[in-house]
Amino acid sequence: MLARRVSGSGQKHEEPPMPDLPETMQALVLTAPRAALELREVSVPKPGPGEVLVKLAASPINPSDLHFLDGEYGLAWPYPLIPGLEGSGQVVAAGPGIMGRYVLDKPVSCTADTQGCWAEYMVTQAGLCLPLPADLPLGLAAMGVVNPLTAVAFLQIAKQDGHRALISTAAGGALGAMIRRLGEAQGVDVINVVRGAQQVERLKAEGATYVLDQTDADFDAELAAACKTTGCRLALDAIGGVMTGRLVEALRPRGEVLVYGALEGAASQINPGTLLFREIVVRGFWVSKWIARKSLPQKMLIMRQVVKALQDGAAQSHVAHIIDLAEAATAPAAYAADMSAGKTLISTGAFPLGVEPSQ
Amino acid sequence: MLARRVSGSGQKHEEPPMPDLPETMQALVLTAPRAALELREVSVPKPGPGEVLVKLAASPINPSDLHFLDGEYGLAWPYPLIPGLEGSGQVVAAGPGIMGRYVLDKPVSCTADTQGCWAEYMVTQAGLCLPLPADLPLGLAAMGVVNPLTAVAFLQIAKQDGHRALISTAAGGALGAMIRRLGEAQGVDVINVVRGAQQVERLKAEGATYVLDQTDADFDAELAAACKTTGCRLALDAIGGVMTGRLVEALRPRGEVLVYGALEGAASQINPGTLLFREIVVRGFWVSKWIARKSLPQKMLIMRQVVKALQDGAAQSHVAHIIDLAEAATAPAAYAADMSAGKTLISTGAFPLGVEPSQ
Repeated sequence: MLARRVSGSGQKHEEPPMPDLPETMQALVLTAPRAALELREVSVPKPGPGEVLVKLAASPINPSDLHFLDGEYGLAWPYPLIPGLEGSGQVVAAGPGIMGRYVLDKPVSCTADTQGCWAEYMVTQAGLCLPLPADLPLGLAAMGVVNPLTAVAFLQIAKQDGHRALISTAAGGALGAMIRRLGEAQGVDVINVVRGAQQVERLKAEGATYVLDQTDADFDAELAAACKTTGCRLALDAIGGVMTGRLVEALRPRGEVLVYGALEGAASQINPGTLLFREIVVRGFWVSKWIARKSLPQKMLIMRQVVKALQDGAAQSHVAHIIDLAEAATAPAAYAADMSAGKTLISTGAFPLGVEPSQ
Repeated sequence: MLARRVSGSGQKHEEPPMPDLPETMQALVLTAPRAALELREVSVPKPGPGEVLVKLAASPINPSDLHFLDGEYGLAWPYPLIPGLEGSGQVVAAGPGIMGRYVLDKPVSCTADTQGCWAEYMVTQAGLCLPLPADLPLGLAAMGVVNPLTAVAFLQIAKQDGHRALISTAAGGALGAMIRRLGEAQGVDVINVVRGAQQVERLKAEGATYVLDQTDADFDAELAAACKTTGCRLALDAIGGVMTGRLVEALRPRGEVLVYGALEGAASQINPGTLLFREIVVRGFWVSKWIARKSLPQKMLIMRQVVKALQDGAAQSHVAHIIDLAEAATAPAAYAADMSAGKTLISTGAFPLGVEPSQ
C-alpha cells in the first residue's frame, strides 16, 4: 500500500488544488504480523476520487488495534503498512467528489481505509470522516468513532429488538463505560462483567447497579440470577473463549450473544445442547459492516447520536497517557498490559488536543 | 409423571366415553439419567382435556432419544419416566376437546408430551398427532415426525432465506438421506459431510454430488472450496465440538450454522474472529419449538409436506432392526454403537408394521 501511494504520487488532480504540503511524513510502520513498529520517513499520500487527506492530530490505541498488529483483524492490507484504525485531525486536501469538498478544512473524527492513523497524514474515504463541532477537543475526537459508534450501535440494536437489559463484558474498559452511560440514559439495564474485585468496587462507586466479577466462584450463578431478574436476552461478548459459553448458559431462552471481540485469544466454547434447547443465537458483530449497510439518512442519524454522545460526555474516554508519535513504537505493548487503566493517545503534535492525561 | 397419571386414574370424563381398555400396560421405564431401562407393568394413563390416548404400534430409537436417556434433552420430565420421543399407532380414546375428536380412531404419527412411546399406550396432546392415510405402513409412520419434520423444516428455512446450497453433517444417517432427497427435489445443492471412506462411497453410489469425509486431512480446504463453488451460506450441525467451528470457517460471509444436535458430546469450538469479521451466525435449532411457533394453517401445510415426503419415499428411513417392546431394554445401546446402519424400531406387536428390516 505504501508502494501504491508512492507510485501514484505523480498523479495530477485538476480539482480542487492541493495545498502546500510536505513531500514526506513520519509514520509508524508494521512490516509483518507481531513485528516491532518502526518509525519511518515515508511519502505523504495523495487523495484519489472520493478520498481526502487528513492532517492528523491524535489516534488512540484500541483493542482492535492490538488484534490488527497481530495480523488478526478483518482487513487484509499488504505489508509494510501503517496501523491505527481511528483518529482525529483536519481535512487539508480532497480528491474529486462532493463528499470530499463537504468535509474539506473541517475538524473530523476519521477511520482508516487503506492506511492507518499512526502517522502525520492519512488518506481515507471522505465518507469515513465525521465532521465535528469546532469546540470538541481533538483529543476526545480522536476516540470518536470505534468505541462511541460501537456503543451507539449496541444500544440501537437493543432498543430495536425490544431488549430492556443486556450483559456487557470487559465492562471495566472505555467502551464498557460508554455502554453503561448510554444504557442508563435509554432505560436499558446493563449487567457489567469485569475482572477482579478492584474493578467491581470502581464501577459500583460510579453508580453501576449490576457488577459481576468473572473470576468469582459464584459468577455463573450470579450472572444467571441477574439475567432472570432483568429478563436479559442480549449479551455483548468482547472476550470469546469460555466466556461465550458462560453467556450462552446465563441468558434467558431465545437470547442472543453478539461476539464483537476476542480479548481472550481463544476459541469460543459453547454447549450445543444449551444452544438448541434454549434456541440461543451467537452472532458475529463488526461495527464497520453494520454501519456500511445503513442508508445515508440512517448513517446521518447515527452520526448525530455519536457526536451528541461525545459532546455530553456519555462517549468520552478517560485518557491515561499522551505519547508523541516519534516515541510511540512501544506504546501498544504497554497499553495491552493494562487496558482498563484508560486510553493511550498517540499525538502528532500538530494540534492542541484539549485533554489532560490522568492516571 | 407416572405417579400423576396413577393418582389421576379415578377422574371421570363425561365425553366421549372411554372404550374398553386394560388397566395396566407394559412399558420401558427409566429411573435416572443413564440408568438401565426396566420393563415394568404400569397403569394405562387417561387422557385429559385436549389429550388423546394412542394405542402404540412402533417407535424408533433416534439420536435425540439417546440424549434423552442421558438426561441431556430439553424436556424436564420427573423420574421414573417412559422414554421414546415419537411413534405410530391408533388413537383409541380422547379427552374433552375438538382436536381429540378429530383424530379419534385414526392411525397417526405422534410425538410425546409428558410420557414417551416405548410402551403399549401413551397419552399425548391431540395436536401432536398427525393423521395418516390408511395405506401408509405404521412401521414407516413410526418415524414420521422427528426426522421428516426436521428435514422439511431445514428445506423450508433454506428456501425462505434464499439459500441455494447447504452443508449437511452426519449425512450418512437417516435424516441426512431425507435432507439429500428433499434438497434434490427442491433444487438446493447439498454438501454431505460424513465420517469415513465407506460412507463416501455409499453416498456417491446413491448419486450424491458433494460428499466429504470429515476425517480427511484435506477436509477443511475441500469444504471451503465446495462452499465457494455453490455459494453456500447455510450449515446444519448435528455434531458440535470442533465441527461447529469448521463449518463457521468454511461458510461464505454472513453464513449461518444451525446447531440441532450434539453427537460429538463436546462443546462447540468457534474462532470468534471468524464469527465477527465474516458476520457468521450460529443459531440453536430445536424442531419442537420451530413447529410450535407456526400458525395452524402453516402447521397444516407443513404436515401435508411431511405426509407427502413419507408417501413418495423422500422421508422414508431404512429399517435395520425390529425388536419387541419386551426385549428392547438394551436396544438403545446397540443402536448407539452403529447409528449409520439404519433404524431400530421398537414394536408393541399390536399392529402389523408393513416394513421388513434389512441389514
